[in-house]
Amino acid sequence: MSLALTLARRGLGNVWPNPAVGCVIVNAGRIVGRGWTQPGGRPHAEVRALAQAGAAARGATAYVTLEPCAHYGKTPPCSLALIEAGVKRVVSAMEDPDPRVSGGGHSRLREAGIAVETGVMEAEARELQAGFLSRITRNRPWLALKLASSFDGRIALASGESQWITGPQARARVHAMRAEFDAVMVGGGTARADDPLLTVRNFTPLRQPVRVVVSESLDLPRDRLAGSLQTAPLWLMHGVSAPGEAVAYWRDLGAELIELPSLAEGGLDPFALMEALGGLGLTRIFCEGGGQFAATLAKAGLVDELIGFTAGVLIGADGRAGIGAMGQENLADAPRFELVETTPIGGDVLHRWRRQTQA
Amino acid sequence: MSLALTLARRGLGNVWPNPAVGCVIVNAGRIVGRGWTQPGGRPHAEVRALAQAGAAARGATAYVTLEPCAHYGKTPPCSLALIEAGVKRVVSAMEDPDPRVSGGGHSRLREAGIAVETGVMEAEARELQAGFLSRITRNRPWLALKLASSFDGRIALASGESQWITGPQARARVHAMRAEFDAVMVGGGTARADDPLLTVRNFTPLRQPVRVVVSESLDLPRDRLAGSLQTAPLWLMHGVSAPGEAVAYWRDLGAELIELPSLAEGGLDPFALMEALGGLGLTRIFCEGGGQFAATLAKAGLVDELIGFTAGVLIGADGRAGIGAMGQENLADAPRFELVETTPIGGDVLHRWRRQTQA
Repeated sequence: MSLALTLARRGLGNVWPNPAVGCVIVNAGRIVGRGWTQPGGRPHAEVRALAQAGAAARGATAYVTLEPCAHYGKTPPCSLALIEAGVKRVVSAMEDPDPRVSGGGHSRLREAGIAVETGVMEAEARELQAGFLSRITRNRPWLALKLASSFDGRIALASGESQWITGPQARARVHAMRAEFDAVMVGGGTARADDPLLTVRNFTPLRQPVRVVVSESLDLPRDRLAGSLQTAPLWLMHGVSAPGEAVAYWRDLGAELIELPSLAEGGLDPFALMEALGGLGLTRIFCEGGGQFAATLAKAGLVDELIGFTAGVLIGADGRAGIGAMGQENLADAPRFELVETTPIGGDVLHRWRRQTQA
Repeated sequence: MSLALTLARRGLGNVWPNPAVGCVIVNAGRIVGRGWTQPGGRPHAEVRALAQAGAAARGATAYVTLEPCAHYGKTPPCSLALIEAGVKRVVSAMEDPDPRVSGGGHSRLREAGIAVETGVMEAEARELQAGFLSRITRNRPWLALKLASSFDGRIALASGESQWITGPQARARVHAMRAEFDAVMVGGGTARADDPLLTVRNFTPLRQPVRVVVSESLDLPRDRLAGSLQTAPLWLMHGVSAPGEAVAYWRDLGAELIELPSLAEGGLDPFALMEALGGLGLTRIFCEGGGQFAATLAKAGLVDELIGFTAGVLIGADGRAGIGAMGQENLADAPRFELVETTPIGGDVLHRWRRQTQA
């Protein structure tokens, strides 16, 4: 199962709206097939592993990180494929909460006389598949918030200068991380200030993540972002009030335009935003700011993971804050996260945290 | 030498104005004596190790983390003690830059026919003895700045609420750190806001660090700090303009009052402050804020070490900044530090950094 989880990880960022699944087929103590969900979400892991195993699948045990599917979608169900291949035993990490599956895969296997064991390394599988589980059970993607800041939590000088606070190795790691997410997201303020490309550039990823820019007014620069639509998809989340000219401009360039409701106090509704992104199939989102947008998401309790890169430099309180004002009145109510990892990287410190109480 | 350095470490915080030295005496492959500088700075490490070795010091090798002293101070010189004990060889990590010693200890040993080897593990010895070296060569103590903050670099909510951002293990570690420094220092703003005790409280230290409060106006609360003069010394660094009544009040309580020049633009001169503290014999200072005081010290380039405790909580930009405004115009000029350590502690991350280019 540990190997199946490692294989599953290869799919992260490449398989949405599907889960990143891994499958290992073992016959008489020998690994005869290995598979993982392929870019775009198909073929499924089990199909790949069975193809590799061929006749050796007969009488074998299949280890899968998620319950095999039971429904006819764009491909026949994997549970059927496992039955037809003559697999004797299936060990799965967890049930698939997708209502089209949800126990149906396991019961179909059992009905065919296959021994089914489930819940093996379930915690690890839940963590790895958190994005897919979030989309299915919470109706929104898993949201990671990245902050690259000075020792004192600043992302730029008062002048806006921010190149470079963290070192080249930390920046390369950010590109590697982007590739493990379905989408990279920023608010309109950051898009206006930096006109960022938001692409994976240190290496050629299997698939460029979707670029999501959230701007109520669609008041965006029309240079780098606009010039890179051939490189990676661009989704613009805007308000009802966005000018028709801007909507037409971006649509003509090939961007997806998604209209969202605004809040009475101004700004797009963050819950509607996340629900829309989940509805469009995204499972894992990497948010790179800016400060006010991050504060809105954090205040709404929508941030699931924090990814910090801290540099050994002092900027001071007149520098720009990584997370905007949150108007919190009690420390007890502030969003709390659990430490997952801390690693030196180049001359900086990487620290990752997960939300303490999941909804 | 590695053992000698470990022994030397025990003296940190307890031996100012003297260096924390370690000494190991080895005879025929057997450790016959171990010593380190005792609380208050005497006896010296060599004297302790020789006393333990007794007759076994004859013909032995002595490993010392710093050149043995050559001058008559409050005790006879250690170089003489080594000669009289019949030690055959001395291995020292580095020369003592103290002008009263500076090579004199080594040459006196050589004149007596003892083989002297120096420069062994010098980098480690320099790091451990950085406080003493700073006092001797830069005329000021080594200055560490501690910051316990949220993920986004805030030390309190807008309301001032800060209990607790970091967890109990991180807070216990702060007390252990205080005990390894000669003094704990805060600015007047923090003293006014928190009236902190600034003592080591999680355990009984060999010696309570000196408490240094830096307040131009001596406008300080007269409750906890004033009530704890029996527990630990209190040094008040104030300006010429401090009212006579306040000076008399604190002096009568038993505090040391040290008057410092003010800058034309207001505030005490940070260079004069550090020079005064060095002149009073301090070698290692642990500064715990507040934000504006920390910014002044950082801007002046007086901070040698950063100690960060980062908690997995989000406070937002309306919270209080750990380091005040620094008015920096270029990122290239911002003070840079090198990563020394990063460790999870309780649910928080401890990260330590040292100034990249030492003066």
